[in-house]
Amino acid sequence: MSGKFRRIIGRKKKVLPPPGASPGIFHVTEDALKPRITVYSFSQTTYGETSVAAFDELKEFLHDHSKETHWIDIQGLGDNNLLTSLKNHFSISALVMEDIVHTRQRPKLEEYEDYVFAISRMICLAKEGGIENEQVSFILTKNILLTFQENYEDCLDPVRKRLREGKGNSRAAGASYLMYALMDLIIDNYFYILNKMGDELDNLEDRLYAKQDKSITVEAQQIKRALITIRRAAWPERDKVNDMIRSQSPLITKNTRFFLKDLYDHSIQVIDLVESYKELSTSLIDMYLSFVSNRTNEVMRLLTVISSVFIPLTFIAGVYGMNFARENPETGKVLEQNMPELYSEHGYLYTILVMVVIALLQLFYFWRKGWLK
Amino acid sequence: MSGKFRRIIGRKKKVLPPPGASPGIFHVTEDALKPRITVYSFSQTTYGETSVAAFDELKEFLHDHSKETHWIDIQGLGDNNLLTSLKNHFSISALVMEDIVHTRQRPKLEEYEDYVFAISRMICLAKEGGIENEQVSFILTKNILLTFQENYEDCLDPVRKRLREGKGNSRAAGASYLMYALMDLIIDNYFYILNKMGDELDNLEDRLYAKQDKSITVEAQQIKRALITIRRAAWPERDKVNDMIRSQSPLITKNTRFFLKDLYDHSIQVIDLVESYKELSTSLIDMYLSFVSNRTNEVMRLLTVISSVFIPLTFIAGVYGMNFARENPETGKVLEQNMPELYSEHGYLYTILVMVVIALLQLFYFWRKGWLK
Amino acid sequence: MSGKFRRIIGRKKKVLPPPGASPGIFHVTEDALKPRITVYSFSQTTYGETSVAAFDELKEFLHDHSKETHWIDIQGLGDNNLLTSLKNHFSISALVMEDIVHTRQRPKLEEYEDYVFAISRMICLAKEGGIENEQVSFILTKNILLTFQENYEDCLDPVRKRLREGKGNSRAAGASYLMYALMDLIIDNYFYILNKMGDELDNLEDRLYAKQDKSITVEAQQIKRALITIRRAAWPERDKVNDMIRSQSPLITKNTRFFLKDLYDHSIQVIDLVESYKELSTSLIDMYLSFVSNRTNEVMRLLTVISSVFIPLTFIAGVYGMNFARENPETGKVLEQNMPELYSEHGYLYTILVMVVIALLQLFYFWRKGWLK
Amino acid sequence: MSGKFRRIIGRKKKVLPPPGASPGIFHVTEDALKPRITVYSFSQTTYGETSVAAFDELKEFLHDHSKETHWIDIQGLGDNNLLTSLKNHFSISALVMEDIVHTRQRPKLEEYEDYVFAISRMICLAKEGGIENEQVSFILTKNILLTFQENYEDCLDPVRKRLREGKGNSRAAGASYLMYALMDLIIDNYFYILNKMGDELDNLEDRLYAKQDKSITVEAQQIKRALITIRRAAWPERDKVNDMIRSQSPLITKNTRFFLKDLYDHSIQVIDLVESYKELSTSLIDMYLSFVSNRTNEVMRLLTVISSVFIPLTFIAGVYGMNFARENPETGKVLEQNMPELYSEHGYLYTILVMVVIALLQLFYFWRKGWLK
Amino acid sequence: MSGKFRRIIGRKKKVLPPPGASPGIFHVTEDALKPRITVYSFSQTTYGETSVAAFDELKEFLHDHSKETHWIDIQGLGDNNLLTSLKNHFSISALVMEDIVHTRQRPKLEEYEDYVFAISRMICLAKEGGIENEQVSFILTKNILLTFQENYEDCLDPVRKRLREGKGNSRAAGASYLMYALMDLIIDNYFYILNKMGDELDNLEDRLYAKQDKSITVEAQQIKRALITIRRAAWPERDKVNDMIRSQSPLITKNTRFFLKDLYDHSIQVIDLVESYKELSTSLIDMYLSFVSNRTNEVMRLLTVISSVFIPLTFIAGVYGMNFARENPETGKVLEQNMPELYSEHGYLYTILVMVVIALLQLFYFWRKGWLK
Repeated sequence: MSGKFRRIIGRKKKVLPPPGASPGIFHVTEDALKPRITVYSFSQTTYGETSVAAFDELKEFLHDHSKETHWIDIQGLGDNNLLTSLKNHFSISALVMEDIVHTRQRPKLEEYEDYVFAISRMICLAKEGGIENEQVSFILTKNILLTFQENYEDCLDPVRKRLREGKGNSRAAGASYLMYALMDLIIDNYFYILNKMGDELDNLEDRLYAKQDKSITVEAQQIKRALITIRRAAWPERDKVNDMIRSQSPLITKNTRFFLKDLYDHSIQVIDLVESYKELSTSLIDMYLSFVSNRTNEVMRLLTVISSVFIPLTFIAGVYGMNFARENPETGKVLEQNMPELYSEHGYLYTILVMVVIALLQLFYFWRKGWLK
Repeated sequence: MSGKFRRIIGRKKKVLPPPGASPGIFHVTEDALKPRITVYSFSQTTYGETSVAAFDELKEFLHDHSKETHWIDIQGLGDNNLLTSLKNHFSISALVMEDIVHTRQRPKLEEYEDYVFAISRMICLAKEGGIENEQVSFILTKNILLTFQENYEDCLDPVRKRLREGKGNSRAAGASYLMYALMDLIIDNYFYILNKMGDELDNLEDRLYAKQDKSITVEAQQIKRALITIRRAAWPERDKVNDMIRSQSPLITKNTRFFLKDLYDHSIQVIDLVESYKELSTSLIDMYLSFVSNRTNEVMRLLTVISSVFIPLTFIAGVYGMNFARENPETGKVLEQNMPELYSEHGYLYTILVMVVIALLQLFYFWRKGWLK
Repeated sequence: MSGKFRRIIGRKKKVLPPPGASPGIFHVTEDALKPRITVYSFSQTTYGETSVAAFDELKEFLHDHSKETHWIDIQGLGDNNLLTSLKNHFSISALVMEDIVHTRQRPKLEEYEDYVFAISRMICLAKEGGIENEQVSFILTKNILLTFQENYEDCLDPVRKRLREGKGNSRAAGASYLMYALMDLIIDNYFYILNKMGDELDNLEDRLYAKQDKSITVEAQQIKRALITIRRAAWPERDKVNDMIRSQSPLITKNTRFFLKDLYDHSIQVIDLVESYKELSTSLIDMYLSFVSNRTNEVMRLLTVISSVFIPLTFIAGVYGMNFARENPETGKVLEQNMPELYSEHGYLYTILVMVVIALLQLFYFWRKGWLK
Repeated sequence: MSGKFRRIIGRKKKVLPPPGASPGIFHVTEDALKPRITVYSFSQTTYGETSVAAFDELKEFLHDHSKETHWIDIQGLGDNNLLTSLKNHFSISALVMEDIVHTRQRPKLEEYEDYVFAISRMICLAKEGGIENEQVSFILTKNILLTFQENYEDCLDPVRKRLREGKGNSRAAGASYLMYALMDLIIDNYFYILNKMGDELDNLEDRLYAKQDKSITVEAQQIKRALITIRRAAWPERDKVNDMIRSQSPLITKNTRFFLKDLYDHSIQVIDLVESYKELSTSLIDMYLSFVSNRTNEVMRLLTVISSVFIPLTFIAGVYGMNFARENPETGKVLEQNMPELYSEHGYLYTILVMVVIALLQLFYFWRKGWLK
Repeated sequence: MSGKFRRIIGRKKKVLPPPGASPGIFHVTEDALKPRITVYSFSQTTYGETSVAAFDELKEFLHDHSKETHWIDIQGLGDNNLLTSLKNHFSISALVMEDIVHTRQRPKLEEYEDYVFAISRMICLAKEGGIENEQVSFILTKNILLTFQENYEDCLDPVRKRLREGKGNSRAAGASYLMYALMDLIIDNYFYILNKMGDELDNLEDRLYAKQDKSITVEAQQIKRALITIRRAAWPERDKVNDMIRSQSPLITKNTRFFLKDLYDHSIQVIDLVESYKELSTSLIDMYLSFVSNRTNEVMRLLTVISSVFIPLTFIAGVYGMNFARENPETGKVLEQNMPELYSEHGYLYTILVMVVIALLQLFYFWRKGWLK
């Protein structure tokens, strides 16, 4: 599982605009995806879903002054004309447009006269496996919610489904509630992923106790990396929600504000979990080091016991393997005084006994030290 | 003991609702326990205890406008009807009901017009051993206190016993005091468990000094895990109590508020202890690493002393074990010039002496370095 | 010295009341010491010291409305009657009495209508050696200061002596100044102990540089433990003194408040020292690990040098110790082609030379790597 | 790449003035570069660029009261006369001049009656490779922006280019917008460098997983060093921008203030990245230690397996290499009782079998322990 | 250099007064130095310097009401009479006198009706080498500045020189500016020492990369110790300067306040540097551990390669050194079936070949693992 964490989070670096770009001028990169636009129009009693190809087709929704709420869901940011037209229609600030297109922003809330601009970071399990860290930008006006994402894939389908099915008060509560619902879903996905990470950490801890495999630290480290990424999104997310609760903007209804308090609690819980899990993953890596050191110690002890017992014995055997045996060159008679032990009657037996005694003494010593476990 | 810590705290993951659930809609999971409801009715002079099976039987207490205080103690959250009926009767907010049922909330206080909602996290020793981390939700109205728990087991019996026996001012002080008394008991259990952990840490430290057993780090790590969990409950607990003290709600009486200051002190003490013990457990793991490194060093020194002394000696013995002894193929007479030492009169003695001198020099060197301790 | 730190601080766990005790009800444990009561009565010109056995004998002091200040010094908390009588006489809140008896409270200040309640934690060197962490509770009224301690021993004698000798403005400045003087003495003892710890840390560092003894980490760890304990007292101590300075209570005179600012500085200095020393002790343990790793490295190098030099040589000697010497079974003539080197004229000499060359090459290699130091 | 980081950041220590210099007196060091002065004059419709050699030539711009904005871009601080003349002309405070010349200041904003003084730290890739940490000082008056740098090289060319090309609102928005644009570019360069560091950290992590090379820690450490340096600039940078947003000075236009909010977001993002990357680099160094310990463990296991298997076998071979073979000195008949095994019929075969069995048992033992993996 | 750091900072413990001293009573210790008093009298136009032996000689300056500023520079605190006379003359609070004499105070500012009391900690290079951490106490009145130091040596000479030479506005700006100038010089010395430490850390890092010498950690640790000491002075120094800026006292002139803002910036820079260098020194110690572990790994690999290659070969040689050679006791004919290899025609050659193959296979294996690098 952690392999997936890393492949996606660790690597997918956004291409930065070169330093020195004019502030407030957005750069649509060439490999940006062509937008897919869907408009969800709904009121308590009505519901419609329209795929839109270009800005012109959007106009009817933009100028609709009925009570319907329109969610203009834009996936892909690769259309300069569309973005410019939207910018002009909603009088969106140039800096806001820049933040929408350069998708490395922190979660934040900005209130303008005619609209509210917010950013969430969507961290969810992508369909092909792995984790997607994507920016969702919100432009909220009276009855229109614009959302911008870089990719076609997201994890917002449950809200789309609720809208279609008319479940809960999703249709009746207006655009700001829809924005809340999307943000809430995004935070729910944080929990979902953190839960998976918690399970993985438990799993790693079990494996660590069983066997000190190098992959355990690698995976703990990758989870820690992912947690550092999530934390970078979670802290400003909390501040953003807090800003929304305290916002004076009439575009955020009192009802939505009420739900936002709940979202605020959730965002704090996310931070709590991230910090706890980060501590656990650090702790796992430390434990691994302790365990490996301990194993090295055990390995060394075995080596030392075997070496200490046999090296002296081998030395003794080596001594009596020496050829200090002067023979009378004429008679071939052995002159015994040279290595007298070799020619004593029970020399071999005594030597073996001495070896056994040395070995037993050493084993006793090691047993006393607890090295024989 | 620590085995118990881990088995329960580390593993009992609550099943999360899937991401995308409608906010404010609670999901009674299938394996949730059927509620066991007990109503404790009391005033300074009266006391009654009634087991209740369904919402209908509760009504008489709900509409009682006498001076009696009713504690409706609900253990088990597996009855959708009951929860919905209570929600309607007390006009409880949908988000509050969601928090009651989805039992992974942080401690918090929320004040509503007609009631006060609070959450505590009950961390206590379960009967079968181990630690239970359970959510207790409180709904406080004028003379009724509703408490919700997920399981049948809890550690609130001392308050029930005090109510039965009429000890202290438990009966006379009303519903908000009862809520305080329950929260105080919950915090008292934190102390109880932290004290056990402190003893265990002392114990681990003693064992560490005596013998570097791998289980010491494992247990220190498990205590640290448990402390991380407790800390996650203890910090918001403190904030919750502070919110209660500063609350303007008339449902929390002045007398209760007075006692809450005491509870606030206790919650800070819990945090102090958790942080201290966490530091101690980290410190223990570090110490373990130091100790193991030290033992490895000692083991290595022994190996090195024995190897250094005997390997050169064995080499010398090996040299004189070589068969460089040219014989006159005709006469069998030994040609002495080939390995002259072997045939010198005192060769063997001199060799042994050289070996002894080498060994003594080495031992002296190691003794000087302090390796022979 | 550190042995003392540990024996006392690490172990002397106060017995906790079981969870579930009624709030505001104090439990005099059976092994609590019988109180020893001394009343110090003094004004600028007068001084008296009376030992008192029971509450009745105290009454004369309690109802004295002269200008004399009375310090009722109670050592030992094992008399339920006395405590209850005092509680009633001074209308002390039940929660305050609980805090006095359950001696695990943090330093704090609580102001009531008729009295001020304060707690200090007295950390001082006990007579039998070691560190005593004891609670001192203060009840301050207009001209009476009550102090409560659990044990007979304390480190408050210097203030008693100053009172007796009439030094400084100790007698003239009233009850609140006396309370300040006692608190100041308690903080002075923190400095005294911290100074001892600082010396011990210097000492440990010197020892560490000289010799990596395992006891160094053990002692550094014990000092760290003691510092964690002191820190737990020092931070709230600072807050308490700050509360006293800003207190509006008329019981704390303006003159005392002036001195309290000095005490506040001291309490910050204690925290500074504790944090610095804690960092130093952690640093020492880390250094120890580095040093041990370094020694292990040195040991390994020696082993490797000796093994690398002699193992190949021993192998060569072993080769020429082999018995591949086919003899003509009939003539006994040696067939030289089997191990020709053995029978070459200078085989032995050449072999020894080869061995010397190999050894020298290796030694040169190790010298180049700096392993021969 | 990291080599570059270190060479520049780690080493290029500014020469400090000796302690004791008069406050408010600036010291032009001898090796300071002669100033190169360029004046960029522009309005919405006009644009001019003039190289200036001395203060006298500057005067025409300084006394110009047209609507043109003048950016006086001073590279090199080695001209005492110029600096003094500017000081007098703009009535710049002596302390400000000191801060401009002594280029080790933190980013800050200071508002004076007639001008605003600001400092940025420019951290950018120098042309010859490596990182340059240089101070840029700003003096902002109504229509003049003075910038001071120590060196001729900087990374501000993109703004110069935009001015020349008249892109964006760079020309029309006045001096305070130009100051913002320069500061924004400086922060953009932080991102650029941090991004490079992030890539390098990813790269190091990959290399770490593949092979535990010592250079990995060295490079991780150098990145950490660079991050510590950047952090020292980034935190006060954020405060400076915040001060600029809240500044009451009429010299900073409302339009600029609006853009500054965007810059503030960027400066927070820089801090986020720095902290995250610092954590990652620390983590990498820890991982490296774990990995090396693990490898040592593996090496030890191999050594232990081979030693444990062969040392006992070699001992057995040594025993049977001993020469305890008493011959009848007269007949040459072997007395078999001395080492009877040597002369038993299948002694050699049995010995080899025993050796094989011992080896197999040990290998089985090690295989069970998982050491043969 | 670091040796100097340690010798002075680590050891020179001030003797603490025994706990229990009366608050507000100062103790002149016996080994305190006799004061050397110099009075610097100056105005914009006049300048005088007088050595003074006793309090009586001071009086003329104390009662001087001309416009001259007098700096009474007292080095050495060993004269009870002088201190008492000054205390009485200036009506200095007893607690202030205590702080002046007991020279372990933190930097702080205290404002009194007639004077301002401030403390700086002077950390400068002493003449005999090493670092001096000394307290400088300031008493500021309308035209008199009293400074108190414990020792004769200090690093304030540059200010004295400036006064003598009349450089800058040192003479004209009055007593509060003089106090500022002295404090500024003290902070300048912090920079000077921190710069030295930074160089030393760079130096240590270079040495670490070249050779893992134990002295590197020792020196890094000593620098860390010194940094912890400096930090303990630098944080309250910053607060003190801030208090001075916001002080309402008329004794601190508006002009001085203006310069104090500059000092405030410097004090923050000191803290920045201290924290950065502390992080670097910790990092160095961690790196050292990594490096040593790495070297141990390399040493182990060499040992393992050599042992693994030669131990099996030595075993084979040992086998063929065994004496299993049954001879026909009557004929001396060798019975070949006992160790048949020994008597095969090419046995020796084959054995050597087998050994070479084994060695090559092992070397190939180790080369594949990258251990032969």
